[in-house]
Amino acid sequence: MSIVVLGTVALDSVKTPFGRRKDLLGGSAAHFSMAARLFTTVNLVAIVGKDFPAKHIAFLRSKGLNLASLVIDKGKTFRWEGEYSGDLNTALTLNTELGVLSVFKPSVSEEQRRIKNIFLANVDPDIQAHLLSKMRGPELVGLDSMNYWIHHKRKELIRLLKHIDIYVANDQEARALSGQSNLIKAAKALRGYGARMVLIKKGEHGVLFYSDRFIFSLPAYPVEEVIDPTGAGDTFAGGFMGYLVKTGRINSLNLKKALGFGTVAASFNVEDFGLNRTSKLKPRDLQRRMVKFRECFNFNL
Amino acid sequence: MSIVVLGTVALDSVKTPFGRRKDLLGGSAAHFSMAARLFTTVNLVAIVGKDFPAKHIAFLRSKGLNLASLVIDKGKTFRWEGEYSGDLNTALTLNTELGVLSVFKPSVSEEQRRIKNIFLANVDPDIQAHLLSKMRGPELVGLDSMNYWIHHKRKELIRLLKHIDIYVANDQEARALSGQSNLIKAAKALRGYGARMVLIKKGEHGVLFYSDRFIFSLPAYPVEEVIDPTGAGDTFAGGFMGYLVKTGRINSLNLKKALGFGTVAASFNVEDFGLNRTSKLKPRDLQRRMVKFRECFNFNL
Repeated sequence: MSIVVLGTVALDSVKTPFGRRKDLLGGSAAHFSMAARLFTTVNLVAIVGKDFPAKHIAFLRSKGLNLASLVIDKGKTFRWEGEYSGDLNTALTLNTELGVLSVFKPSVSEEQRRIKNIFLANVDPDIQAHLLSKMRGPELVGLDSMNYWIHHKRKELIRLLKHIDIYVANDQEARALSGQSNLIKAAKALRGYGARMVLIKKGEHGVLFYSDRFIFSLPAYPVEEVIDPTGAGDTFAGGFMGYLVKTGRINSLNLKKALGFGTVAASFNVEDFGLNRTSKLKPRDLQRRMVKFRECFNFNL
Repeated sequence: MSIVVLGTVALDSVKTPFGRRKDLLGGSAAHFSMAARLFTTVNLVAIVGKDFPAKHIAFLRSKGLNLASLVIDKGKTFRWEGEYSGDLNTALTLNTELGVLSVFKPSVSEEQRRIKNIFLANVDPDIQAHLLSKMRGPELVGLDSMNYWIHHKRKELIRLLKHIDIYVANDQEARALSGQSNLIKAAKALRGYGARMVLIKKGEHGVLFYSDRFIFSLPAYPVEEVIDPTGAGDTFAGGFMGYLVKTGRINSLNLKKALGFGTVAASFNVEDFGLNRTSKLKPRDLQRRMVKFRECFNFNL
């Protein structure tokens, strides 16, 4: 089984209480892929500019990603610059340069169009809808977005949700799009927009999963030293979707385990800058931490 | 097995988005007791004034509480007035009248002094220390406090922690007393002050348990309609301590289950004003919701 992920591949500059890094390889699709690759073959659909370092391309390829639909276009790579302080829960965006993203029309090969699993990571909803329309009979479609699109392309986003199996949002986004402050009510409202399942990420407080058939709630993996949370949500989504695709069956137990693998993948992501930690992971690292994570709360010892 | 709980019995006036109630029976010891009574015999140590309605005394007695050490003194009952808005996570205290609490010197009967389980619910640390000094060979001592005492009687509180088995704090309190914003670091620092185990309540985000031997993390029970959160933390502590006392053994599984019962008890508490919901509970209500709660996250189905 394999998955197509659409999103950004970016150059991130970040400042946290633990230091400052410039032009790190980042972006929603890159973080997603670094976790999902541990379970399944990842087909990356993204765009970068001519300024994108060749070593980053080589690095992504060395991680086993299929880069057939990674476009290198005239212009500059998408850049994001942000800062975290205090409890590192919220990023302050200092600067965003869209570059080539502003003209991105994603396309996929004939072979990739037949892949049944898709994740539309955070990018303009019009671009997400464009890619989705190209796919032939997708079976499992996940979607992430962000506050900017919720406010500026609300209609387009809500229209898109009708075609989505799993909508992945953080708590602020879920509240903003639904207009509900209670997260279960928010999840119900988002279900009402059409998404079959709703997954609300609460950062250091874990995750809430809602569908008509079940509600799950998992705490976060307890991380003592958060170095850089950039991409934690995308990494979560990558671990979650990757595991689901690997199992090939959506049921209660697989969904819970997928939430667990997402949680564990995200906990590695925040332990170092950028992709430093997740890019070195092997499947057994996730398995080992998963055992520790389950010990944190599972009743049946 | 039985437990002694020291704390406040109060008249609460509260306003939430769901209405307004005046002079509700409340207070840390009352909320604690209403959950703990479902598992064990509760000996209430508290003070009220001559204005305390006789019906409230009769009500507490009808719930099976031992009121031998509930003092009715000249003066007024402790009153608290508060308001919740928005997501109901934080109370705005509008007014506090200490009344008889300001002269409270708790005493217990010779029989009660020999009880091995004690919970020092939120009240002046000097009063907590005074009661603890009266007990003969306590074996399991829990303690709760609040930001007011953390700021005004920090030294006394830290001195007291050396004699505490389980320190129960909410996240703000844990951060304020430890000076650490990461909750695991905060728990470690509080462990360093002497408390053998540290239980950090995160409201709608669940609970973190820390000891030298294990870290547990549980999500909250998903409650859709929070009517009045007053006393949720005390109710949590009551369910937690009550279950531990009932089992008579502190081990990993019993601690996790106790955290579960505390969580479930607190989820009932917030579903109505004051003690309305918890006072009507039977042990089987907790058991039933516990099954649903475990379904929310347990992996071993």
